Amino acid sequence: MNFASDNAAAIAPPILAAIARANAGFALGYGNDDLTKTVERRLCELFEREVAVFLVATGTAANALAIAHLTLPWGAVLCHADSHIATDEAGAPEFFGGGLKLIDLPGEAGKLAPATIAAAIAGGRGAPHAVLPSVLSLTQATEAGTVYSNDAVRELSALAHRHGLAVHMDGARFGNALVHLGCTAAEATWKAGVDVLSFGATKAGALAAEAVVFFDPKRADGMASRRKRGGHLLSKHRFLAAQFDAYLHDDLWLALARHANAAAADLARRLDVAGLTPFWPVEANEVFVALPPDVDDRLKAAGAKYYLWPAEALPASYVLKAGHRPVRLVTSFATATEDIERFAALVSGA
Amino acid sequence: MNFASDNAAAIAPPILAAIARANAGFALGYGNDDLTKTVERRLCELFEREVAVFLVATGTAANALAIAHLTLPWGAVLCHADSHIATDEAGAPEFFGGGLKLIDLPGEAGKLAPATIAAAIAGGRGAPHAVLPSVLSLTQATEAGTVYSNDAVRELSALAHRHGLAVHMDGARFGNALVHLGCTAAEATWKAGVDVLSFGATKAGALAAEAVVFFDPKRADGMASRRKRGGHLLSKHRFLAAQFDAYLHDDLWLALARHANAAAADLARRLDVAGLTPFWPVEANEVFVALPPDVDDRLKAAGAKYYLWPAEALPASYVLKAGHRPVRLVTSFATATEDIERFAALVSGA
Amino acid sequence: MNFASDNAAAIAPPILAAIARANAGFALGYGNDDLTKTVERRLCELFEREVAVFLVATGTAANALAIAHLTLPWGAVLCHADSHIATDEAGAPEFFGGGLKLIDLPGEAGKLAPATIAAAIAGGRGAPHAVLPSVLSLTQATEAGTVYSNDAVRELSALAHRHGLAVHMDGARFGNALVHLGCTAAEATWKAGVDVLSFGATKAGALAAEAVVFFDPKRADGMASRRKRGGHLLSKHRFLAAQFDAYLHDDLWLALARHANAAAADLARRLDVAGLTPFWPVEANEVFVALPPDVDDRLKAAGAKYYLWPAEALPASYVLKAGHRPVRLVTSFATATEDIERFAALVSGA
Amino acid sequence: MNFASDNAAAIAPPILAAIARANAGFALGYGNDDLTKTVERRLCELFEREVAVFLVATGTAANALAIAHLTLPWGAVLCHADSHIATDEAGAPEFFGGGLKLIDLPGEAGKLAPATIAAAIAGGRGAPHAVLPSVLSLTQATEAGTVYSNDAVRELSALAHRHGLAVHMDGARFGNALVHLGCTAAEATWKAGVDVLSFGATKAGALAAEAVVFFDPKRADGMASRRKRGGHLLSKHRFLAAQFDAYLHDDLWLALARHANAAAADLARRLDVAGLTPFWPVEANEVFVALPPDVDDRLKAAGAKYYLWPAEALPASYVLKAGHRPVRLVTSFATATEDIERFAALVSGA
Repeated sequence: MNFASDNAAAIAPPILAAIARANAGFALGYGNDDLTKTVERRLCELFEREVAVFLVATGTAANALAIAHLTLPWGAVLCHADSHIATDEAGAPEFFGGGLKLIDLPGEAGKLAPATIAAAIAGGRGAPHAVLPSVLSLTQATEAGTVYSNDAVRELSALAHRHGLAVHMDGARFGNALVHLGCTAAEATWKAGVDVLSFGATKAGALAAEAVVFFDPKRADGMASRRKRGGHLLSKHRFLAAQFDAYLHDDLWLALARHANAAAADLARRLDVAGLTPFWPVEANEVFVALPPDVDDRLKAAGAKYYLWPAEALPASYVLKAGHRPVRLVTSFATATEDIERFAALVSGA
Repeated sequence: MNFASDNAAAIAPPILAAIARANAGFALGYGNDDLTKTVERRLCELFEREVAVFLVATGTAANALAIAHLTLPWGAVLCHADSHIATDEAGAPEFFGGGLKLIDLPGEAGKLAPATIAAAIAGGRGAPHAVLPSVLSLTQATEAGTVYSNDAVRELSALAHRHGLAVHMDGARFGNALVHLGCTAAEATWKAGVDVLSFGATKAGALAAEAVVFFDPKRADGMASRRKRGGHLLSKHRFLAAQFDAYLHDDLWLALARHANAAAADLARRLDVAGLTPFWPVEANEVFVALPPDVDDRLKAAGAKYYLWPAEALPASYVLKAGHRPVRLVTSFATATEDIERFAALVSGA
Repeated sequence: MNFASDNAAAIAPPILAAIARANAGFALGYGNDDLTKTVERRLCELFEREVAVFLVATGTAANALAIAHLTLPWGAVLCHADSHIATDEAGAPEFFGGGLKLIDLPGEAGKLAPATIAAAIAGGRGAPHAVLPSVLSLTQATEAGTVYSNDAVRELSALAHRHGLAVHMDGARFGNALVHLGCTAAEATWKAGVDVLSFGATKAGALAAEAVVFFDPKRADGMASRRKRGGHLLSKHRFLAAQFDAYLHDDLWLALARHANAAAADLARRLDVAGLTPFWPVEANEVFVALPPDVDDRLKAAGAKYYLWPAEALPASYVLKAGHRPVRLVTSFATATEDIERFAALVSGA
Repeated sequence: MNFASDNAAAIAPPILAAIARANAGFALGYGNDDLTKTVERRLCELFEREVAVFLVATGTAANALAIAHLTLPWGAVLCHADSHIATDEAGAPEFFGGGLKLIDLPGEAGKLAPATIAAAIAGGRGAPHAVLPSVLSLTQATEAGTVYSNDAVRELSALAHRHGLAVHMDGARFGNALVHLGCTAAEATWKAGVDVLSFGATKAGALAAEAVVFFDPKRADGMASRRKRGGHLLSKHRFLAAQFDAYLHDDLWLALARHANAAAADLARRLDVAGLTPFWPVEANEVFVALPPDVDDRLKAAGAKYYLWPAEALPASYVLKAGHRPVRLVTSFATATEDIERFAALVSGA
């Protein structure tokens, strides 16, 4: 019963198989191999346009490199206060961006509202005294397990672009979002105004593979140097490519995300039945509930794994009962139905 | 009628005279001159202990160098959301600190409250995922023209130290604060827990001179290289020293600050009489009021200079009348009584 | 006939098998898994002392993180002008080190001589005007395919330590060096004065795995944050650990290196017989010769892969015949005897 | 007898007088005052074109800000190994440039030769593996007290531009060079291919004032933020402007430089007569000779100030007599004839 994180899961078997398949003979290093070219082509097809692609091994690297590339060091990045870049990357965007500033903004259910963005852009004394809002970073699916509609992304992006900001999407769980949206990858990104996507595969089933995707390839000038300089150009690059190749093949990525989302929905439904209603709509692969202390103790005793969620991140309207413990439950491609059933049964006191 | 900023004032005559006096013959560069040694000694006397001193030409440099020296790049600096380092230094602390993060915190009347600091320290996922709260930066006097009591500084510093944070004080208006507090410089700083002070002279009457004062000289190891590398070691350093020498001589700095504070108090009293009550206590050299539009127009037409203040920075309890314009009025050593009288008369419609 | 680089080789089968074996069930992310703990223990045993270990996916990351951790930003790093950090990492050490400076030094056969180091340390105006020599970085085996004796490392390290410099060893080909030296890993590192080792596995047969090894664990304080902030903490860390676990198991790493070194020696011998004497002693897995143009053309036509080597890097005493082309030939764990034979036969004109 | 450095001199009286004159009433801060506008206009006139100007207080700031603005962080800056940026700025260009790399190059008499530059550009593995040569920085007058001819600057600049490098000129002693060249400021800079000039006034007689001059104003986009963020935007900016205004007024700067150059020529002539021939042509305000030990002792005993010069910087062809001590003698606007005469007399044993 591991609901701690989707990165506690292992490698999806077809992706491991692809690594093994790629393990034959010699290949040019540093992305000059054929498999890398194949993946680049596949991503152009998936996004229905020419894109520039940079594969890296971690989501933090993908986000930090992408954001740093979109702004000068005196730029500010507007992001949700609970976003991964704001809370969990140890200042990687600031480091890669030469000291840029993240402006951490509030927002219900992990989402930023247009008025919040507009106010953040309007604030500040302007150059040269203040940092300049330069990037809007949206997380899709959000840290609250919710998903922006394409209309919402379009509205936020248009607002950002009107003021000269570039739009970055942290898609560590992009597959989970897309399955929820039921649209094409192009519709969920550049057609809605996204300039650069951190396209995650690791949480979804890869060993360690993320793609930074520039929808305007010219904007990627110099990114190859930035990646190398960050230590993020793998020499045996074919094995990064192999992971992405398998991930995209026959829509494996959507199948994996569908499984994770369905598991979350199933879990949420069962918890709801047991009287634990999630704080936020369950739209991707995360469920947030407040556990009564005895339930929490029982689950822990039975070996269930999950993390507490900070009470101050809860919806303003939510009334947390005394002693109850807010937790985050994450499902993945590897979540088994039995684990969900067992978890729900333990909640119900069975 | 210039109330735009204390740095719109010129050089206090005794300080200019000191520069002229220092302009005789040759002197070793880079701080190896006698006048620099004299200033270092004077500062030790003023603070009643051995201190390490680094003179620079701007407040931004003083703050950024000091803060960068107190934390590793993955550190976080807790500061008021309206503080100069957060809003007006174009990301200088982030740049000098290798990408450190400022945590902008709310607080009434420009001040941080212990509970706010405690919550900020408690938040975060800890290393290696999150940046680590490493510095508390207090502004004295604050951006709201108020002054922390020594007890308040002591309480906040003790809290910071208990959690391993160093305490920095942005004293761009340290003289104004000290005059209000009526205590010694030592009492207002290290005796209350401050580790490093940005001791400002520029706003108070210097041409361009600020001192970074380390109350524990060992903590300053390497600071000479950091200053030089930032381009902040003046070659003809004697002229920086001359400014500080005159500033401290015969308590000139306190006399200058006393004048500025008295001017602010006088202005506030007259505005109050005219029905414009300042939002915040007038404890240093700044007065914040909301001007009716016709008054604002009249003042502007008469050539008065001052800046609008963002409405969102007002006290939560303050009810801003429709159309009224919040403004900041700054006095200085150079503010003339006639200007205050004329300003007040214009407010009253005379 | 791929002699382009050892990173053109694939994954050694036991290492791939270990990844597959680790692919079972859930595991805590970010290095909190059991396999990571096992690897840390193994490395302590291998080096016969407590060490602090940080696994990353690239050699550039290992070097840059290690070096940045050993010096303040105003430090200088003494290194060979042909070293990987100086020529092939796109400025990664400078980036991670906040703008530190590499002092590129000459040296025969890829090696630095004590007199060169001593002169570099003695040069410079000292603080605060000049950057301060803070790290000596040695490459073992060198970029010229040679190996420092332990006595040479000891002499250079002692010299560095006497002047307060830390000693870093870039061991991207540490296994190849150790096989040549025939000593223990401890003797080749900390017993000879090395403070931090970049211990490479990628070129030697891993998918992507390098270990930064601190021989004084206290020196590693904060390194976890530095790695995370650089985007180099893999979430599914067990798969990095699995590679190292297999690499070290039953001395696989030495067996792989032995094969590569033997292949290089075999190749060198055959080339020598054919009249092509290597410029530099063949002590690890690289052979440097100057190819007559017709030989080069014939090899290329037959599909052989290798890179030109810059003529200016050749030994001062070497007389390069007109038109001859200096090349680097790299062998690996995967080099087949038939390829060596065929290559040599092509050289001989067969 | 102070020949230690031109920055050991004080402030030229007309410049101090200008500061005093500017000390009247209030003025907008941060460069929004009238005097700053005047200086900007004056510099456009002097350089016979629209230029973008940024005043700062130190030469290190001017150089570091200028160079950082001309290249991305993975750029390399080609410069003379003895240049100020390479040896005396504690890594400021590297810091401001986000970790850029200086390529320190040899060259006779402080000058870089075209072949050296061409080789440096041709070397390196190219992106993304190596840093990319992006800036050529020339020092005029050089650290050896020599002056590039305009033809030489033109040839080097054309070479740089052909390969996409920008050309920076460190003109800490630009006045001294111009007086030697006898041409216009435009001819010595952009007409010869210079893109950005660090135009020094401090060594020449200012308190602390340098101008970064962009000959293509568009290239300066963002520079205002970069300066502010570096802590180099003075709040009472009128006093920086006042210095430059006086410096340029009635060609004061050329008069000051003429005095310094003439003093150096006079000193060199007298030393030559006394048997001490300078190593390098005396073309600006520096004289380099090797002092016999007894002469050095006698001068020191008489209170003469000057610095030793590293023996390894001497011309390859120069034969340094055993025990003789190479020294640098710098003259300035303030050098008195009597000091030269007395120095020469002491050399002659009088």
